[in-house]
Amino acid sequence: MLNRNIETFIACDSEYGGAKAALFGAPFDGTVSYRPGARFGPKAMRGESFGIETYSPYQRRDLLDLAVFDCGDLELPFGSAESALKLIEDRTARLLDDGKLPVMLGGEHLVTLGAFRAVYAKCPGARVLHFDAHADLRDDYLGDALSHAAVMRRVWELTGDGGIYQFGIRSGERAEFDFAAAHTNMTMFGFDGLERAAWELAGTPVYFTLDLDILDPSVLPGTGTPEPGGVSFRELLDAVLMLKGLNVVGLDICELSPHYDQSGASTAAACKILRELLLVML
Amino acid sequence: MLNRNIETFIACDSEYGGAKAALFGAPFDGTVSYRPGARFGPKAMRGESFGIETYSPYQRRDLLDLAVFDCGDLELPFGSAESALKLIEDRTARLLDDGKLPVMLGGEHLVTLGAFRAVYAKCPGARVLHFDAHADLRDDYLGDALSHAAVMRRVWELTGDGGIYQFGIRSGERAEFDFAAAHTNMTMFGFDGLERAAWELAGTPVYFTLDLDILDPSVLPGTGTPEPGGVSFRELLDAVLMLKGLNVVGLDICELSPHYDQSGASTAAACKILRELLLVML
Amino acid sequence: MLNRNIETFIACDSEYGGAKAALFGAPFDGTVSYRPGARFGPKAMRGESFGIETYSPYQRRDLLDLAVFDCGDLELPFGSAESALKLIEDRTARLLDDGKLPVMLGGEHLVTLGAFRAVYAKCPGARVLHFDAHADLRDDYLGDALSHAAVMRRVWELTGDGGIYQFGIRSGERAEFDFAAAHTNMTMFGFDGLERAAWELAGTPVYFTLDLDILDPSVLPGTGTPEPGGVSFRELLDAVLMLKGLNVVGLDICELSPHYDQSGASTAAACKILRELLLVML
Amino acid sequence: MLNRNIETFIACDSEYGGAKAALFGAPFDGTVSYRPGARFGPKAMRGESFGIETYSPYQRRDLLDLAVFDCGDLELPFGSAESALKLIEDRTARLLDDGKLPVMLGGEHLVTLGAFRAVYAKCPGARVLHFDAHADLRDDYLGDALSHAAVMRRVWELTGDGGIYQFGIRSGERAEFDFAAAHTNMTMFGFDGLERAAWELAGTPVYFTLDLDILDPSVLPGTGTPEPGGVSFRELLDAVLMLKGLNVVGLDICELSPHYDQSGASTAAACKILRELLLVML
Amino acid sequence: MLNRNIETFIACDSEYGGAKAALFGAPFDGTVSYRPGARFGPKAMRGESFGIETYSPYQRRDLLDLAVFDCGDLELPFGSAESALKLIEDRTARLLDDGKLPVMLGGEHLVTLGAFRAVYAKCPGARVLHFDAHADLRDDYLGDALSHAAVMRRVWELTGDGGIYQFGIRSGERAEFDFAAAHTNMTMFGFDGLERAAWELAGTPVYFTLDLDILDPSVLPGTGTPEPGGVSFRELLDAVLMLKGLNVVGLDICELSPHYDQSGASTAAACKILRELLLVML
Amino acid sequence: MLNRNIETFIACDSEYGGAKAALFGAPFDGTVSYRPGARFGPKAMRGESFGIETYSPYQRRDLLDLAVFDCGDLELPFGSAESALKLIEDRTARLLDDGKLPVMLGGEHLVTLGAFRAVYAKCPGARVLHFDAHADLRDDYLGDALSHAAVMRRVWELTGDGGIYQFGIRSGERAEFDFAAAHTNMTMFGFDGLERAAWELAGTPVYFTLDLDILDPSVLPGTGTPEPGGVSFRELLDAVLMLKGLNVVGLDICELSPHYDQSGASTAAACKILRELLLVML
Repeated sequence: MLNRNIETFIACDSEYGGAKAALFGAPFDGTVSYRPGARFGPKAMRGESFGIETYSPYQRRDLLDLAVFDCGDLELPFGSAESALKLIEDRTARLLDDGKLPVMLGGEHLVTLGAFRAVYAKCPGARVLHFDAHADLRDDYLGDALSHAAVMRRVWELTGDGGIYQFGIRSGERAEFDFAAAHTNMTMFGFDGLERAAWELAGTPVYFTLDLDILDPSVLPGTGTPEPGGVSFRELLDAVLMLKGLNVVGLDICELSPHYDQSGASTAAACKILRELLLVML
Repeated sequence: MLNRNIETFIACDSEYGGAKAALFGAPFDGTVSYRPGARFGPKAMRGESFGIETYSPYQRRDLLDLAVFDCGDLELPFGSAESALKLIEDRTARLLDDGKLPVMLGGEHLVTLGAFRAVYAKCPGARVLHFDAHADLRDDYLGDALSHAAVMRRVWELTGDGGIYQFGIRSGERAEFDFAAAHTNMTMFGFDGLERAAWELAGTPVYFTLDLDILDPSVLPGTGTPEPGGVSFRELLDAVLMLKGLNVVGLDICELSPHYDQSGASTAAACKILRELLLVML
Repeated sequence: MLNRNIETFIACDSEYGGAKAALFGAPFDGTVSYRPGARFGPKAMRGESFGIETYSPYQRRDLLDLAVFDCGDLELPFGSAESALKLIEDRTARLLDDGKLPVMLGGEHLVTLGAFRAVYAKCPGARVLHFDAHADLRDDYLGDALSHAAVMRRVWELTGDGGIYQFGIRSGERAEFDFAAAHTNMTMFGFDGLERAAWELAGTPVYFTLDLDILDPSVLPGTGTPEPGGVSFRELLDAVLMLKGLNVVGLDICELSPHYDQSGASTAAACKILRELLLVML
Repeated sequence: MLNRNIETFIACDSEYGGAKAALFGAPFDGTVSYRPGARFGPKAMRGESFGIETYSPYQRRDLLDLAVFDCGDLELPFGSAESALKLIEDRTARLLDDGKLPVMLGGEHLVTLGAFRAVYAKCPGARVLHFDAHADLRDDYLGDALSHAAVMRRVWELTGDGGIYQFGIRSGERAEFDFAAAHTNMTMFGFDGLERAAWELAGTPVYFTLDLDILDPSVLPGTGTPEPGGVSFRELLDAVLMLKGLNVVGLDICELSPHYDQSGASTAAACKILRELLLVML
Repeated sequence: MLNRNIETFIACDSEYGGAKAALFGAPFDGTVSYRPGARFGPKAMRGESFGIETYSPYQRRDLLDLAVFDCGDLELPFGSAESALKLIEDRTARLLDDGKLPVMLGGEHLVTLGAFRAVYAKCPGARVLHFDAHADLRDDYLGDALSHAAVMRRVWELTGDGGIYQFGIRSGERAEFDFAAAHTNMTMFGFDGLERAAWELAGTPVYFTLDLDILDPSVLPGTGTPEPGGVSFRELLDAVLMLKGLNVVGLDICELSPHYDQSGASTAAACKILRELLLVML
Repeated sequence: MLNRNIETFIACDSEYGGAKAALFGAPFDGTVSYRPGARFGPKAMRGESFGIETYSPYQRRDLLDLAVFDCGDLELPFGSAESALKLIEDRTARLLDDGKLPVMLGGEHLVTLGAFRAVYAKCPGARVLHFDAHADLRDDYLGDALSHAAVMRRVWELTGDGGIYQFGIRSGERAEFDFAAAHTNMTMFGFDGLERAAWELAGTPVYFTLDLDILDPSVLPGTGTPEPGGVSFRELLDAVLMLKGLNVVGLDICELSPHYDQSGASTAAACKILRELLLVML
């Protein structure tokens, strides 16, 4: 579990023993059908995190006051999605066993399935809070059950109906929206009803998964499948702050593909949201 | 009229005979004074259209249910604007004769003149609905009557006073705004009054021309003349949805210059707006 | 004071004698700790200024009606901040002596200190209006008192408590916000209270400094330290228009780093804001 | 076998029946460990092929005089290398059965295995001519037998010792060079001995595989793993011309990753080499 | 003839009266069929010229010792090739009348025709020395006689057979090479025979036109039509040095399209060649 | 001296105690007059080093067999060149005292002065072997004695006449070449005479400094001041291999500015040369 030979996310340089949360990267983008590159997300976030401050004027709190460990990146095989998911599941389980909040940096969205499997094994009633542009509810993608376009369908197979709360969804096949109407709690386009959902989820263990492409591509062009018409940074930030007090038992940030944004603004947005998330959760 | 040797816009692969609408590219940027590149717009839109879905959650309709043919691109001479306009006019006329809705992908904004000439010949009372950052009402540009900065002035010479409804205009010479005050219906900066305009235009044949630089450059940096202070994607989308029910007899989307946005977000925005437009119109 | 061998900002080609305002570039980025490149800002603004119009539909006024001289860029040593500041101070003093409004194009934000020293010497009671994402109130940066992260602290040493009005601040160390609470008038995140500040400042000589990174990185990715969650172009424009009538005795625009935005949209935003500022001030 | 909805490589628009050779794209990069993107290679080559001429002044022959069909791209699953290889093998076998020379556009280098399996089944004594920067002779990569770094090892398992002629190799693990010394005919760094190899191979069925990263990264920066110290374009061209008269029964061009070279020069080099190869082979 | 409001090429800031040579830009790319952008060439060369030195260690001479005037750029209409050529011809004629060596910075290659018309009118027996990747000998391009692909054909109509010496040609249609065999002195691929040509041309008035795409795209990716297999920088430099002593009465450098090379290396190559040319000629 | 929180250069993860050589980054570019960015060099080299192999087929040796420690980067103040040099000198001295070969990764070329001061204090007769495109022999740059354009002049003030051997120089002011003729051993353009120099230097302590812009910009566009006409990668590699057996007591690699080459090829070239240097030296 040592983080040899890595540069940590800013201020996440606590010793493992005393850490309340542990970051790890899951640099996998093996099932991406359109534009790969999310494998470079975790490394870019660590490297660019030194361009933001540790202090949040939104929460008036400072990362320097937290105890977070950064495990570095998992070494994942690109050719085999199932093997990659197993390695992610094992790491997440280990962190949970050690009493750390697992915080995963994707990678494509499929990695959520690995982490959630471990969380669900530990907290059988856990529910999923899902911010995304895409429904990710396909039954399969070109026959492939393990695809970033099908990850929430796989998660639903664990949680059953009503176990997933989706916000911001603005893209999918017609069948995905039909499925959502029957089986998940989906809010399209934005965060209407998030406050109520937070109230419903109070006390329940929650896994939070953030697909960064919920942001408008003007804010985050650095992602594999830019989908116009998304939320602004302030809208996402306000939604994240609303999670304060939830019983979050695991979380991830996915789908930053930094090479598609040479300005670095996308990576800066991802870093700042991670800072705020850590300060909200800990 | 065959579309040999092209890759069509997503789901626009109907046979010509049964198609209700027909796309064609007009990859011309020969009069652009500042930064060329709109010639690459149609090809980029076709290639990247596979990154969006065919289904619209905004309209709950699917491109797969429409019958659209994609003619591919016209082969246009760069050195002669008049020749290019003639070829565009002929293609538009042919599509109108065959009972198809012509949908042109520019290219720079001057191409609108070619298409509108054909539409106006067919529907003499047609009016023009114009979304743009720039007034495009110069009498000429460096002595050139055929310029993308003068295209609406040329269109006005056909329609006469009151024939053009302009929205979103935020840039031009003083003389252009003076001209507009006297001769066109111009709404500056946004879409105030669009609902009323739609009501006025009900039943009248309308040519709709969309210069994508009406969008803020944060949303669409990939254009020849980025003009800060534009509308958001959602504002444009809402405006497009308001066109439902109009008697649109021809339309175009212009001024995507994809090379200026390596992230692909500009092209994605153009593709998504085209999807919504086709679903609104058909 | 001749502007030999330069290409001026659009329509700023008045003769020096009759000019009411004088632009000059301060292409210095020697203390930037994160990503350099602001040295290229003034040249990019001049070169790209021809992509915008001279006429403002917001103010219904035209740059062509003003008399502005463009001095070109100062030649500044990169290795020595103090020397650079001295050259900036001298140039500003000379312009003030000649009765011109000095308009400086940065360069990193430290250049403000040079210009303000000259202004303060001439107008001892001058106050500072500061638009920025960052507080810039550090006492030093890695022991360096002359740093772009400390420039407002240095300015405060001149003006004393209450002399600085800060707007839009969304990033800094905890100590900077504590300092601001005690010593400056800081509005976080946006422009609330700007109208009241303008009322308070009426009649007082004001130095206006605009760090362009107050804009959201979606609007202006081309800057050294992109900080998500900023204001929109329209919000900044509205704020700038609110400065009408203030007794502005000097001003600057800083921190455009054009190489980080290959689309040119960042530079276009900077040019348009400068046009509006000149029209507001003169 | 129809090429619906594609834009062919320049002048490769013959009807299938009369074609002597058939191009197909294998847009797979699922095992790439470092930088993905070779999936975009075939599409880039088709799109940019119109920037070169059909006539070769080197061979004084013209693509217009050949009969080549372009099948478009295979649709390949990214998550499963074995499934992708099977689809490639089937396509290659079908083309061989129909008497066409299969010409595959990668994709990463692993795709060669699929095509060669079909070729080897048809021509059991076939040998392999391999131009590359990398030995590609690992036994596995992170435990994965199907990896672009192991593809020649898999090919060797079919051909046995002496069945592979490698040229230009300048990178690999020590063990790969040891393996080559025992089992393949490897020429390091360049093309010394190619003429002799061509003489040895006369009459034998040969599969030719070209990993474009044999070119120096100055010539072809657009590849996943740039390896400095490669051959010049003229050296590669001369080597290709030396293949005239060989009994080539299948061939591929791999590892163009066009997004890493925004200038388009890499894609132009790939297109020109393909033109010369087609003219040499047919 | 004054150069108001421009930044000159390095050290070309002599007064007009005493200047032996005069630079002017011809920022026209209106007939480019593939990728436009050469219009940005002259401005990029001026701006980046300050990255090279004025002293040549190859010739042991210094630009500072010459007297060169820089006229800035012509303002050319993009829509009309003939009008643009007329303006170029007029400027060249005026410079010749004033006894200055005209040095034109393109722009696409068609601009050569305008300058050569003026030169030929003044020196009826003038011959043309042409360095290029492309033959540029088409009779027309899509029916257009004024095209950058036909410029040498148009020049030949003035000079007649044997009046053009072409070097480095490696691309064209078969018909162009056939035409060259009958009517021009063409050396393919490189500079073999240049020394002999220089000997033949001794004393004759010579117009020298350099299409920068003669350089390999590794050296100059920033051009509209990159053609692999070109000469190295040193080969071009040596060829340029061989022109010492020729009676050059006009010259141009064309087809730098700087946006396609974000590194700036292409522009640096163009600047350095221009420095060497000026030192050779004056 | 611990390397906490860094990602090392490939295979340079030995413990400090047993290491024969120690890498450290000097990410300083504070005196760069043209294009900054060399501060990003060391980090880019570490991050991209995993794209090359540890084994060298040129030397048939492997980095895995060496013992090298990577100290990470020094934290250097950008505003003060003298302070930065002092920190570099201290680090170098400490490594020398501990018996390690210091291997510095720049940064701009001025950093060489800091390291050489320490080396010269330890080995008073040390000479300098200097590979570069630029002479770097100015007395000052805009009055600044500490400039990357003057670094070799400062070094000469320590070594005296004949102490510096320069190779590859192809750019400078006339005065620099005059100075070299009198005071250094300069070989222009390439490596002629390197073998003889190596023979002369046998046994003498040598400091080796490599400015990567000696490479042609086609090979290494990612540098602040690209100078066309440089050596190829193979020429540089051969020259480096010729250093085998020299008594090198310190070395550096400077002037990689990775942001100017988005393809990564420049960084790959720097990494590969560093691998070869380490294998030659240890």
